[in-house]
Amino acid sequence: MMDPEAVKKYLTESAGNAVAALPARFFDVLVLNGLRLDLFEPGRVLCSYAVPPRLSSSGNVLHGGVVATLVDVVGSAAIISSGLPTTGVSLDINVSYLDPAFTGEEIEMESKLLHAGKAVAVASVEFRNKRTGKLLAQGRHTKYLAASSKL
Amino acid sequence: MMDPEAVKKYLTESAGNAVAALPARFFDVLVLNGLRLDLFEPGRVLCSYAVPPRLSSSGNVLHGGVVATLVDVVGSAAIISSGLPTTGVSLDINVSYLDPAFTGEEIEMESKLLHAGKAVAVASVEFRNKRTGKLLAQGRHTKYLAASSKL
Amino acid sequence: MMDPEAVKKYLTESAGNAVAALPARFFDVLVLNGLRLDLFEPGRVLCSYAVPPRLSSSGNVLHGGVVATLVDVVGSAAIISSGLPTTGVSLDINVSYLDPAFTGEEIEMESKLLHAGKAVAVASVEFRNKRTGKLLAQGRHTKYLAASSKL
Amino acid sequence: MMDPEAVKKYLTESAGNAVAALPARFFDVLVLNGLRLDLFEPGRVLCSYAVPPRLSSSGNVLHGGVVATLVDVVGSAAIISSGLPTTGVSLDINVSYLDPAFTGEEIEMESKLLHAGKAVAVASVEFRNKRTGKLLAQGRHTKYLAASSKL
Repeated sequence: MMDPEAVKKYLTESAGNAVAALPARFFDVLVLNGLRLDLFEPGRVLCSYAVPPRLSSSGNVLHGGVVATLVDVVGSAAIISSGLPTTGVSLDINVSYLDPAFTGEEIEMESKLLHAGKAVAVASVEFRNKRTGKLLAQGRHTKYLAASSKL
Repeated sequence: MMDPEAVKKYLTESAGNAVAALPARFFDVLVLNGLRLDLFEPGRVLCSYAVPPRLSSSGNVLHGGVVATLVDVVGSAAIISSGLPTTGVSLDINVSYLDPAFTGEEIEMESKLLHAGKAVAVASVEFRNKRTGKLLAQGRHTKYLAASSKL
Repeated sequence: MMDPEAVKKYLTESAGNAVAALPARFFDVLVLNGLRLDLFEPGRVLCSYAVPPRLSSSGNVLHGGVVATLVDVVGSAAIISSGLPTTGVSLDINVSYLDPAFTGEEIEMESKLLHAGKAVAVASVEFRNKRTGKLLAQGRHTKYLAASSKL
Repeated sequence: MMDPEAVKKYLTESAGNAVAALPARFFDVLVLNGLRLDLFEPGRVLCSYAVPPRLSSSGNVLHGGVVATLVDVVGSAAIISSGLPTTGVSLDINVSYLDPAFTGEEIEMESKLLHAGKAVAVASVEFRNKRTGKLLAQGRHTKYLAASSKL
């Protein structure tokens, strides 16, 4: 991914009709398939899996976009785990990437509810290498909880 | 996605072997297939597509994880567009979600290089509804540019 | 600020009663004194000043905390400029630091309203060196607009 | 701080020469005066104080800019506490505001080193109400560690 021509090709190379025809919400299936839910208690959720090849980026490293997606989804799970009546819409998501997760490595995600108010809830998500315990990434997810999706 | 039991099922419902067998780096293919590269000049990149059903979340809205992934990928493209010799590794990604993008709507992404130093580069990415011009999301991507992936 | 003993001293060295006796809300006065309001139109605010010595950090560089404070205050001004009835409470603030601003240099802040909904408003703030036009920092401020401060 | 005219006045009302004449780096003195350093061990720092009136914003609430400044300064302290030879320059700072801290309330800041590499270090900072234990804010600080301030 090093020169502009390669990047242009990378961004626009179509995989054709097979991908275009995938069903609604396939994105979640692609990211979550194989995930284990190790703990689900009010305000705290633990998940894990071995980094699947399909979610790698260059260098056999878990794609940064997958990490951000898991901050979204697993963070939302921690908000729901507390019994809030609805999960709302995302306002802000941020991630700091600390160390790469390589294909095949077991990683663990821990999400904690930081705040649950009437209108806004916030959860943190930490990613660790399960064998070494090393922190790989930390993110935060702020959601607006009103029933309507209208901010 | 409203009660804890539904969430547990959602997080762990396996789509089985077909998904597990998808090839390395399929994640990028799923997100980028169909994307048009409308402009690619030093420090500025424009892309667009109609939100594909496969990338939707509940409510037929573009998944927040896809938006974050595009901040990663299109932001990296703006960094490469400036002729920097390597694209480095992600340090931080953030996104503010302003308005939903519904399935089928044409959206445009504009990425600008904000800073290109010896060690660090930063790009912003804005998402707009192409018909109305309404801003849908704004994100930022900070990368470390050293050749090695070792921070 | 290089060894642990120096840091301990730095964090706890008291300037004594004179500082402790400063009046309520002096923090805003310290940051804003001397600021010029160059433009104030609906959804867009421009401010400028020469970086005052009192707001420097080590190396005669504008303190990162001041930049974040201006993302807060000038971002709020852009929200108010649009005629919203109240300014709400902060949910999220983020800043990417791109280049240092040295004491005495003229800097310009441009804040734009990115979104104004019923419950949430978002503004961006960009800092530039006024002479060179170089971008020094970019930040974002998300506020919850309900009348009460209870999230 | 509710109508545009009031905001214009607020942003530009000069406190005059007394403030302009304050010495270099007074900003840190204003924020840190009275802070107690309760723990300083490798990778972890605890500080506390009663929210001083001078650092309040409207509503007798600790100013969001002060919270961001403490994420900067106390996060840097956690990086230095690990024995890294220099503290570097800030790349990114973010804060999520969860609950207000009122003037006079005892608050505690806990900073943890999340990552210390050759070029980049990251620390988190959590703010709690000391009496109730309630989480008030969570932030993160990413620094570039090279000796020179040139990114």
